[in-house]
Amino acid sequence: MKSYLPPLGPKADKDTVRRHNLSLVLRAVRDEGESAEATRAGVSARVGLTRAAVSSLVEQLLDSGFLTESGKTFSGQAGRPGTALKVARTGPAGLGVEINIDYVSVCVVDLAATGRVRQTEHLDNRGAPPGEVLGRAAGIAARALDSAREQGLHPVGAALALPGLVSGGAVRQAPNLGWNQVPAEELFARALTGLWPGASPLPVRSENEANLAALAELWFGGLDAVRSFLYLTGEIGVGGALVLDGELLRGAHGFAGEIGHVVVDPDGPECRCGSRGCLEQYAGQTALLRAAGVEESGGGAAGVMELERRARAGDARSVAAVAEAGRMLGRVLSGAVNLFDPDAVVLGGIYRCLMPWLSPPVDAELTGRVVSGLWSPDGGRLRASSVAGDAARGAAALVVQDVLADPVAYARPEPTDA
Amino acid sequence: MKSYLPPLGPKADKDTVRRHNLSLVLRAVRDEGESAEATRAGVSARVGLTRAAVSSLVEQLLDSGFLTESGKTFSGQAGRPGTALKVARTGPAGLGVEINIDYVSVCVVDLAATGRVRQTEHLDNRGAPPGEVLGRAAGIAARALDSAREQGLHPVGAALALPGLVSGGAVRQAPNLGWNQVPAEELFARALTGLWPGASPLPVRSENEANLAALAELWFGGLDAVRSFLYLTGEIGVGGALVLDGELLRGAHGFAGEIGHVVVDPDGPECRCGSRGCLEQYAGQTALLRAAGVEESGGGAAGVMELERRARAGDARSVAAVAEAGRMLGRVLSGAVNLFDPDAVVLGGIYRCLMPWLSPPVDAELTGRVVSGLWSPDGGRLRASSVAGDAARGAAALVVQDVLADPVAYARPEPTDA
Repeated sequence: MKSYLPPLGPKADKDTVRRHNLSLVLRAVRDEGESAEATRAGVSARVGLTRAAVSSLVEQLLDSGFLTESGKTFSGQAGRPGTALKVARTGPAGLGVEINIDYVSVCVVDLAATGRVRQTEHLDNRGAPPGEVLGRAAGIAARALDSAREQGLHPVGAALALPGLVSGGAVRQAPNLGWNQVPAEELFARALTGLWPGASPLPVRSENEANLAALAELWFGGLDAVRSFLYLTGEIGVGGALVLDGELLRGAHGFAGEIGHVVVDPDGPECRCGSRGCLEQYAGQTALLRAAGVEESGGGAAGVMELERRARAGDARSVAAVAEAGRMLGRVLSGAVNLFDPDAVVLGGIYRCLMPWLSPPVDAELTGRVVSGLWSPDGGRLRASSVAGDAARGAAALVVQDVLADPVAYARPEPTDA
Repeated sequence: MKSYLPPLGPKADKDTVRRHNLSLVLRAVRDEGESAEATRAGVSARVGLTRAAVSSLVEQLLDSGFLTESGKTFSGQAGRPGTALKVARTGPAGLGVEINIDYVSVCVVDLAATGRVRQTEHLDNRGAPPGEVLGRAAGIAARALDSAREQGLHPVGAALALPGLVSGGAVRQAPNLGWNQVPAEELFARALTGLWPGASPLPVRSENEANLAALAELWFGGLDAVRSFLYLTGEIGVGGALVLDGELLRGAHGFAGEIGHVVVDPDGPECRCGSRGCLEQYAGQTALLRAAGVEESGGGAAGVMELERRARAGDARSVAAVAEAGRMLGRVLSGAVNLFDPDAVVLGGIYRCLMPWLSPPVDAELTGRVVSGLWSPDGGRLRASSVAGDAARGAAALVVQDVLADPVAYARPEPTDA
């Protein structure tokens, strides 16, 4: 018999407890600071540790540059006034780099996940050698990092958002970029180190772009209490991500969420993935514009704006094309909802602006096909994504989340010069 | 901006640390006992706590009846001989109760998750009032609990495995039983308390039957290193479960895994769920036997045996019916694999004995439709479930897992009489 027990965790010793509590206090200051001024007393009440323990932890966080404190505060706490604590605006920072088909967007966030630097360049990345694309991205990133340093930020890591199957630091396949087996992290890190030499090279990680957009939607969007959702982003491809109880579901190899390649019609048109009749062939940007009779000249974005304009004007062919895409989306989504049971389905990318015509057929399919009447059309569970859901910021925030989870691992032994 | 931080966990204080470490030591004895005799020295080495700390924790576990020790052992440890520690065979136990369409199966396991009592009765539960079915199940359970007590076991909880949508202690819907909004936990607990009065009523939980069969497959089956898989069980309905990294994926409302209601053909035959063309209508037992021309007289099991016999004899209609079901299964599974990216797909229930004719078309669909050639036909990722994957044992083991995770919560203040 195989052991059915979960693997043994690390032992809980004094050092582990202190590191855990440092993270608790740092996050409590961050959360407390949302609504009021954070004080040692307030943090103590929030996390349930003694005032003395909190004071000691706060000292360490101040010394390491994770927190700052300002003058006296009288914000409702009994007893003598405390000083107001804040997450440092000049402390550790995360770099996010989104490489997409026709643009590169770079974002630096501070410990509060506030965007501090943003650089976006429109580039046609299709067909360019991957090393060249990543080199250009590193150039944009280096400029953003310089700006961040000027603001007193100390970047501790970078995350790449890539439109394809990403695992083990490489892009296994990104059909719309024409990439195959590209060691993206390594190529980017090498280019960045050349352009932006630091004390030590910036650690680089990578992740699927839809996954990071979904995380940004979760963290910074308008989802309120929703913690489990399916995220779809309509682009040239149809990207997807699954968030369950506030965590990204990556799958066994990191390839989960490929909803664009769920089959709609087994004998349908050939897909770039090698299969036939995938959702992408019915609800992707190219298929949608073709069905609507909109020329995709001037780039996809212009085509989608034209489609929206025509639908708004009541053009029958445009409305019918969007409705048909909605039926196909709804059919695939009903299966996904039966499998995953999320709180909500969030539609992003080109679907955002098409919601008035897209959501009724999607909702109708979901209502008819989700088991046992668990989906009702006016339940508010089908939503458009917010503008906040952008992959570059999600990537940058991912880096910073690691810092908050274990600040000790990111404490600088001594201040570095700016 | 919404906080993007995970919720604050409990503070790590001395009491929490000790409870955590008691669980560590208990589980280490359990794991160590798999291959060799467990000693205090061996446990100390395994979990990384000092000998003195381990001795103190072991004393508490011995006093509370979670562990037993026997004579001297010389099992390869340096220094003076220790005594051999074992997880108690007379300690806390879990009760699992599977209520299915045509049988009730009850299982009691000890702390090592070894089955110690099993009672199965074939009953036609279709159409009987839910209270009556649960009352009968409680009667069978009471007899099993008596046997367990005679073996010195102390049942600490029960789990029900139910073939339907289960949440909040109730069966929301179990179409094949004809149940709607049945407060199963309450009805079972009340019936059991009447039949088996204890010092305090046994806590009862409930779970979807396919979910528990999948957990049993994970814990006791032949999956080796596989920690993420899709589990399908073919019965009158087609049940499903998703296990990710060793954890059951329950979804936002507990209804995840309803793969039987993923649509195959939007205009296909009506399904009991209210939709059309669900997988169940193509690959469920009834559809399969009908397509093969096998009369379902004498119960479904007899029909499936007859189908297997005919397929083995080369009957063309039977082989074609199974192959067609396999294509539909494979089509739906390819979408599920694209969404979920599991290590393996495990087929149970009636599919187990039909694998020779079922697996080639399933594998062919997966190979053709899973993105970017991530599925290869001979990768060993499509498997038949093992006999160990039974829902009653999974349910009982679930109860016991709680004990192992926090033994203090289940410690008896004083020994009770048997």
